[in-house]
Amino acid sequence: MADSEDQSQPAGERLIYDLNAAPDPASGSGNDLVGNLLVAQSGGPTAVINASVAGVIQEAGRHLDNIEEIYGGLNGIYGILHENLIDLNEEKARSIEELKHTPGAALGTCRYKVQFQKNPEQAAKDMDRLFEVFEAHNIRYFFYAGGNDSQDTNNKVHLEAQKRGYELRCIGVPKTIDNDLPHTDHTPGYGSVVKYNATTVMEIACDASSMATDDGACFIIEVMGRAAGWIAAGTVLAKEGKEDNAPHIILLPEIHLNEERFLAKVKETTDRLGYCIVVAGEGVKDAEGHEIGADKTRLDSFGHPVLSGASETLAEVVHGKLNLKTRTVKLGYAQRCAAHYASQTDIDEAVACGVAAVKAAVEGKSGFMVTLERASKKPYEFTTGLHTLGDIALVERTIPDDWISEDGWLPNQQFIDYVAPLIEGDANVPTDNGLPHFAQLNKVPVDKKLPPRD
Amino acid sequence: MADSEDQSQPAGERLIYDLNAAPDPASGSGNDLVGNLLVAQSGGPTAVINASVAGVIQEAGRHLDNIEEIYGGLNGIYGILHENLIDLNEEKARSIEELKHTPGAALGTCRYKVQFQKNPEQAAKDMDRLFEVFEAHNIRYFFYAGGNDSQDTNNKVHLEAQKRGYELRCIGVPKTIDNDLPHTDHTPGYGSVVKYNATTVMEIACDASSMATDDGACFIIEVMGRAAGWIAAGTVLAKEGKEDNAPHIILLPEIHLNEERFLAKVKETTDRLGYCIVVAGEGVKDAEGHEIGADKTRLDSFGHPVLSGASETLAEVVHGKLNLKTRTVKLGYAQRCAAHYASQTDIDEAVACGVAAVKAAVEGKSGFMVTLERASKKPYEFTTGLHTLGDIALVERTIPDDWISEDGWLPNQQFIDYVAPLIEGDANVPTDNGLPHFAQLNKVPVDKKLPPRD
Repeated sequence: MADSEDQSQPAGERLIYDLNAAPDPASGSGNDLVGNLLVAQSGGPTAVINASVAGVIQEAGRHLDNIEEIYGGLNGIYGILHENLIDLNEEKARSIEELKHTPGAALGTCRYKVQFQKNPEQAAKDMDRLFEVFEAHNIRYFFYAGGNDSQDTNNKVHLEAQKRGYELRCIGVPKTIDNDLPHTDHTPGYGSVVKYNATTVMEIACDASSMATDDGACFIIEVMGRAAGWIAAGTVLAKEGKEDNAPHIILLPEIHLNEERFLAKVKETTDRLGYCIVVAGEGVKDAEGHEIGADKTRLDSFGHPVLSGASETLAEVVHGKLNLKTRTVKLGYAQRCAAHYASQTDIDEAVACGVAAVKAAVEGKSGFMVTLERASKKPYEFTTGLHTLGDIALVERTIPDDWISEDGWLPNQQFIDYVAPLIEGDANVPTDNGLPHFAQLNKVPVDKKLPPRD
Repeated sequence: MADSEDQSQPAGERLIYDLNAAPDPASGSGNDLVGNLLVAQSGGPTAVINASVAGVIQEAGRHLDNIEEIYGGLNGIYGILHENLIDLNEEKARSIEELKHTPGAALGTCRYKVQFQKNPEQAAKDMDRLFEVFEAHNIRYFFYAGGNDSQDTNNKVHLEAQKRGYELRCIGVPKTIDNDLPHTDHTPGYGSVVKYNATTVMEIACDASSMATDDGACFIIEVMGRAAGWIAAGTVLAKEGKEDNAPHIILLPEIHLNEERFLAKVKETTDRLGYCIVVAGEGVKDAEGHEIGADKTRLDSFGHPVLSGASETLAEVVHGKLNLKTRTVKLGYAQRCAAHYASQTDIDEAVACGVAAVKAAVEGKSGFMVTLERASKKPYEFTTGLHTLGDIALVERTIPDDWISEDGWLPNQQFIDYVAPLIEGDANVPTDNGLPHFAQLNKVPVDKKLPPRD
């Protein structure tokens, strides 16, 4: 292997990998690995996951000495196992640019996991098949955009390549609205969901407050975030620094709900303002630590109970105990794909993560995830870094305790300073007939070279 | 009275009242009614109800011969009864302009109704009080922006003025996301909710379709619309004319749900595409005509049962009968105040309705509601008209039967041609720190001249 020193980096290795810096002559100039590139997406999409893919494709086009074909894997690892690859050089340059404001996962995504623990026999077969596909198509540069689970898969692929002595540059591209990946300042996708949700809270506050004189109510807005309250917490920006502005209460999954104190706070707010706006993370937990909205009769594909009703459950409590009118909003998937109001900062950073992944791989790195680093707080500036994949996988980062106000109802100024720059900038997505114009890929298939998967 | 011929117009009178036409010399030039203007808002807000108020205020400033002070009534009729008036001439011109993209009801709104049927004694007291307030502040021009209920109140005020011989020009300004007012092509507020909801459906479709290979599901998006399905139907625009595009099923309150046929359609769609997106109007009804999401234990201030769960109820049915993963989105209030993605056409029309109301009143008209008239289909052009208030009040317009496809799942081309122009144009709301900048009114109170209301 040409780059064994890079492929066996110790756990915890962290590099600042400045996008704007000149290429590292030590690793970059001597790179003789030539082959094809494969980029794929995994897990729940975000408003900007396609922006990262656009970054990968556009940067790949600048490294023709190393990268020959640019392939996309359809539906993540699942599609790659089925040899469902498309030729991204067949796409129009305009379409690639449009990916930067197109929600969903344009290459398709999957929930499929290589089950190393639960089903090692199948996992071994999957790995064999994966490397058959890689060899058949001479894949030497592999970029996987995803969250915790996906970076775990990515790390396993990286380690397997080392074990097999198959030369592969494997770089993870961070993606998750949940902002729960460790070792990165924040994740692409997070700024956009915060911008959309905070805007929604502001707008609902305009509506709710204008009705308050004779039609006051408690509004409960349920947002995503199962284990970590980053998304719920982000709506604090809607307050614009004013105490009486909404949201008046933010319920984080990190803090067990004290129902009595919650009801007292709702009552105090409604008595004072005529209305109360509560933002609830879907994973908010009761005093015993059980998810209050969990419907344990239904499980998602990872075996977690489906959360269908934190807002409805809370509304029942408020209505039942305070006899107060309640209204619920469940933004659900709408919040994670709201490209029409994406943060331009988020888009720029998502693109940069794709670009950095390709640059790092071409310079010989493998086994890292790209990270976002806060280069300057005021004015906000970011750069990219790299962190070993092994430290990312399956670790969920929650909000630091000291970023939450003492009474536990709202995040504090430290959190606000952290999150505020991430929603800056308006995407101004072009429209056709009043609706956003999204990219339509041709998805020209790459000829299959293998028999179908068993 | 100077204008008795205008104040006793027959029911059913309809006038095309072209905004761009020269003033009518017969009525306009001879208008000698001089006094103060009062504008107020009522019922549920929309994304553009404040644009109509801005239109009223800006046009009023052009008629200084007739209109002396420009007052706003806080919280509709409820606040006027409490003599809660503000001086709109104390607002910055910039704030008035900003009202055009500010959601909620900037003057406050109310659900309070003068209970002519249920409580005639209180209604008589309310009317006495209202005219005391009008006289105390020399209100001669009264503009009430609202939907069916509000136009009913407006008509009662108009008739009462005639009965009392109190010279008042009383013009209704249409407002409702529900698009259920009769005698107008459509209502201000409708275009914006359709634009936002259709965009949301498109975005969720990007997300859902990209997950479809191994994580397909039925997505149920609940939108507003209790008796009429205009809002749900509008999301058909997300299809952009393509059969396989979402939404695949739109459930209208006008059509009783046949559960068996519905499940068959969901299954057929999911089998074919891997996912299915259903838009459900909140008032969708079962085969017996009962609202499927009604929670009869909770009533709103008009005594209607609160609808909390059409989407959740449908999700239970789909999951239970088809064993299909379901995900729900309940946009709730978010959809009616989504000023950040309002239709510019809608904003322009809302402003025009306010302008036309003032022009009509100054020309001597009273007892009318401003209507929107489609002056040209292609290219779309609108003008304003007037229709007698008595025909508007409490009448709900539903979607014509022949605008719905024969299988009942989607509106047809006639409906699409009707709705498509209403979402054109992007508001491009200015932002501060990444969030929309909304108007903040000073709300300088007008000195009270009466004892408090009993």
